[in-house]
Amino acid sequence: MRAEIIGVGTELLLGQIANTNAQFISDKLALEGVNVYFHQAVGDNRERIGEVLKIAHARSDVIVLTGGLGPTDDDLTRESLAEFLGISLQLDNEALKNLESFFASFGRVMTENNKKQVMLLEGGRFLENKRGTAPGQYIEYDNRHYFLLPGPPTELRPMVNEQMIPLIRTIVGRQMTIRSRVLRLFGIGESAMETEVADILNSQTNPTVAPLASEGEVTLRITARADSEEAAYALIAPVEKQLRQRLDKYIYGIDDEILPVAVGKRLKQTGQTLAAAESCTGGLLAAMITDVPGSSDYFKQSWVTYHNSAKTEQLGVPSHVLETDGAVSEACARAMAEGARNRSGCDWAISVTGIAGPGGATETKPVGLVYIAVAGPDGTTAKEFRLRGDRQQIRLRAVKNALYSLVKRMK
Amino acid sequence: MRAEIIGVGTELLLGQIANTNAQFISDKLALEGVNVYFHQAVGDNRERIGEVLKIAHARSDVIVLTGGLGPTDDDLTRESLAEFLGISLQLDNEALKNLESFFASFGRVMTENNKKQVMLLEGGRFLENKRGTAPGQYIEYDNRHYFLLPGPPTELRPMVNEQMIPLIRTIVGRQMTIRSRVLRLFGIGESAMETEVADILNSQTNPTVAPLASEGEVTLRITARADSEEAAYALIAPVEKQLRQRLDKYIYGIDDEILPVAVGKRLKQTGQTLAAAESCTGGLLAAMITDVPGSSDYFKQSWVTYHNSAKTEQLGVPSHVLETDGAVSEACARAMAEGARNRSGCDWAISVTGIAGPGGATETKPVGLVYIAVAGPDGTTAKEFRLRGDRQQIRLRAVKNALYSLVKRMK
Repeated sequence: MRAEIIGVGTELLLGQIANTNAQFISDKLALEGVNVYFHQAVGDNRERIGEVLKIAHARSDVIVLTGGLGPTDDDLTRESLAEFLGISLQLDNEALKNLESFFASFGRVMTENNKKQVMLLEGGRFLENKRGTAPGQYIEYDNRHYFLLPGPPTELRPMVNEQMIPLIRTIVGRQMTIRSRVLRLFGIGESAMETEVADILNSQTNPTVAPLASEGEVTLRITARADSEEAAYALIAPVEKQLRQRLDKYIYGIDDEILPVAVGKRLKQTGQTLAAAESCTGGLLAAMITDVPGSSDYFKQSWVTYHNSAKTEQLGVPSHVLETDGAVSEACARAMAEGARNRSGCDWAISVTGIAGPGGATETKPVGLVYIAVAGPDGTTAKEFRLRGDRQQIRLRAVKNALYSLVKRMK
Repeated sequence: MRAEIIGVGTELLLGQIANTNAQFISDKLALEGVNVYFHQAVGDNRERIGEVLKIAHARSDVIVLTGGLGPTDDDLTRESLAEFLGISLQLDNEALKNLESFFASFGRVMTENNKKQVMLLEGGRFLENKRGTAPGQYIEYDNRHYFLLPGPPTELRPMVNEQMIPLIRTIVGRQMTIRSRVLRLFGIGESAMETEVADILNSQTNPTVAPLASEGEVTLRITARADSEEAAYALIAPVEKQLRQRLDKYIYGIDDEILPVAVGKRLKQTGQTLAAAESCTGGLLAAMITDVPGSSDYFKQSWVTYHNSAKTEQLGVPSHVLETDGAVSEACARAMAEGARNRSGCDWAISVTGIAGPGGATETKPVGLVYIAVAGPDGTTAKEFRLRGDRQQIRLRAVKNALYSLVKRMK
C-alpha cells in the first residue's frame, strides 16, 4: 500500500506557511503501517493540480489531498479531481441543509459561493467537518483511495483522527502496525556513531535503524512493522540491545525524552532540586528546563548574571576571579555554580559562561569558548568547550552541553 | 523561470519533521521574483529519488534539493543526481583538506565515511558550509540549475542567503527587482487588522500587501516590483503611509525589527539599562532579549524566581503579598519588577508571573492568566492578560506581551 500526500495552495509555494499537514498525516499513516512514499505541493491552478494528480494516480494507492476545498474561486481541489477522473460533481441536498443551519447557528446568512463546498464527487462520500464549513470527501476510483481534506489544521486534524484513519483501517484490512524506539545520544558525532554501528545499520530490514543529527545531538530510530504493537516491540528489543552494547555511554534517553526531560526524570527519581546560573546563554538554559511541564517540582530558581557586577553581587563570584581569570574562565564557572547552589539551597546547580559572539572575543578567548560547571552534593566539576556556529547555535549547544553535563553527573 | 523544491529524507515521509526548508526557500525565491511551482518530498531511496528528479527535470528550470548530503549510507542525494544526469562524482582534494582541518580544529579525527561529502558533481561547484561538515553543491546541466543543500536548517539557511540567492540573481539576470517593507504590529488580531485596511489590501497590485499572523503578532508585507531598488521603495512609500495612518498605534517596528530588537533599539537610543524577573516564563524572556547580538550593552541581569521563596529572597517580594494575593497576581508582578529594578540598579525592569499550565490552575486562576509589570524611571505599570494556547504558546505570548509592554512605555 503506497500513499502520497498532496498539499494544494499557493500559500505553500510562496513560503507563507509550512506544510505541517503533510507531517501530521504522514505520522498518522506510519502508525497504521501505511507507507508514505511521496509528498507533493502545488498551487491553486487547475492545470498544475491535474499534472500532480496524474503523477500520483500512476504510482500510489492512497492519495490524500489537503486544501482547496473552501468557497472561494481559487479553491480548486474538488473540481480538478472530478475533471482528472472524468466524473461529475453533484450538489448534495442534505449537506447543503447542514451547511445552511451551520451559518444560521451563528446568525449569518449563507452566501451563494458556499454551495460549491457541498458538491459531491460522483460515487464519493462526505467526511464531516465539525470545525468549519468545508466537508472532506472520500472516493475510491480505479483502485485508488482519494481523501480530500480541508487545509486549516484545526479542521483537518480531527477529520484525520476521527474519519480518515478508521477508513484507512478498513482499506488496509489487516492491522499492520509500525512502532519506533528512538535512542538519544550526546557527545558523539553522526559519522562517528555510524562508524561504530555501520554493520547493524546496514544489515537491518525489519526493524530498520536510521540515524539523525541535529544541533549537537544524535538519534537512532529503530522502526519495526508487525501485526501487533507487542510483536513490533519484540522485533525492536534485540536490535536496541545490540546498539546499546556499543553506544551505551552516549545514550541518555529514549523516545521523547530530550535532554531537559532526562534531567527532570533523574531529579524526580532522587527527589533532588536544581538551580542555574547563566551568562552567555542569557536565560536559555532556564527556559529549556522550565519548558517541561511539572519542572517547578525540581527547578527552583536561576540567575542570569549577564553583567560582571551581577556575578559578584548575586552569586558571590570573587572579584579577584573576574580580575585574574576573567568572566569567561573555569574559575568563574565554578564560582557561579557554587554560588547558585549555596544561595538557592538546591542539591544541584549548573552554570554557563562563555562568548556567544559575534562580538566579545579577545586574542586568547575566541567566540565559542564556553565553560560549564556542575555543583552537586559530591563537589563541583567544570569543563571547557569550544563550540561552533553562530550566536544562536553556540547558545543552544552550550545549553545542551550543560544539561548533558548534569545528566552524566547524575548517572 | 520555474522553480521546484525537493526535500529528501525518510524523516519527512514518516512525519518526524515538517518540511520547513521548503517554506524558507520558497519565501526567499518569491522575493527574487522566481516562481516556485512545485514541492516534492521523497525518502532516502535511490530509485525513488531518481523518479522525482525525472519529474522535476522535465518541468522546472531551477531545482533545489534539500537533505541527504551527510556522511552516512542513507545520504543519497548527490549520488542519485549524478546517476540521473549520467555524470561522475570526483573527490575534491581542496574540500577534503578543509574538512580534515575542520575536524582537527575540534581535536577530532575524521572518519572515512566523511569523504563522501566532498565528492563533487562533475562540472559542479561547492557551496561553502560554515556551520557543518556537508558542503552544498551547484551545477548547471541541460539548462537546469540544480542546488544541493544540507538538511539541517541552521546549515541550510545561511547557505541560501549567502550563496544560493546571489547565484539565483545571476541566473535570473535581474531585470526586475523585488523589495519589501514589513510593518510589525502587536495588540491587534489578523482579522481585525484586515477589516481596518481591507480596501487597501484589495486595491493593490504593485505593490501588493499581504497580512500574516503568528503567535500573537501580525505583520503586513508590502512588496513592490520595479526596475531598481529606488523605484521599488518609491512604490512602497505611499502605501506604507496609508497603512500607518490607520494602524499607527499598533506598529512597533519594521522589517527584521522583531520585539527584542525593538526593545534594544530604544534602550540604546536612550542609553538606558534593563533587568528582568520571571516566574512562569522561566528564563524565556531573558533568553529572547539576549538572543540579540550586543544586548549586553543594555541588559544587565535577570532572576528566574520559579519558587516562591526565591521571589522573597532574591527580589524582596513581601511574604504578605504571596500569602494574600498569591504569586500569580498584579501585586506580585509589581513587587517583582520593582525588586528587580532596585536590586539591579537598572533604569527599567520587566516582570512576568502567571500560569503556563498544563498544571497549576485553581478555581479563580485559570491556565493562561498572566500578570506583567514594567518598573521604570516614572513608576510602575502592571496589566493582567488571559492568554490562549498550550504551555509553549502561553510562555511565548507572555514574553511578547512583556516586551511590547516595555516598548509602549518607552514610546
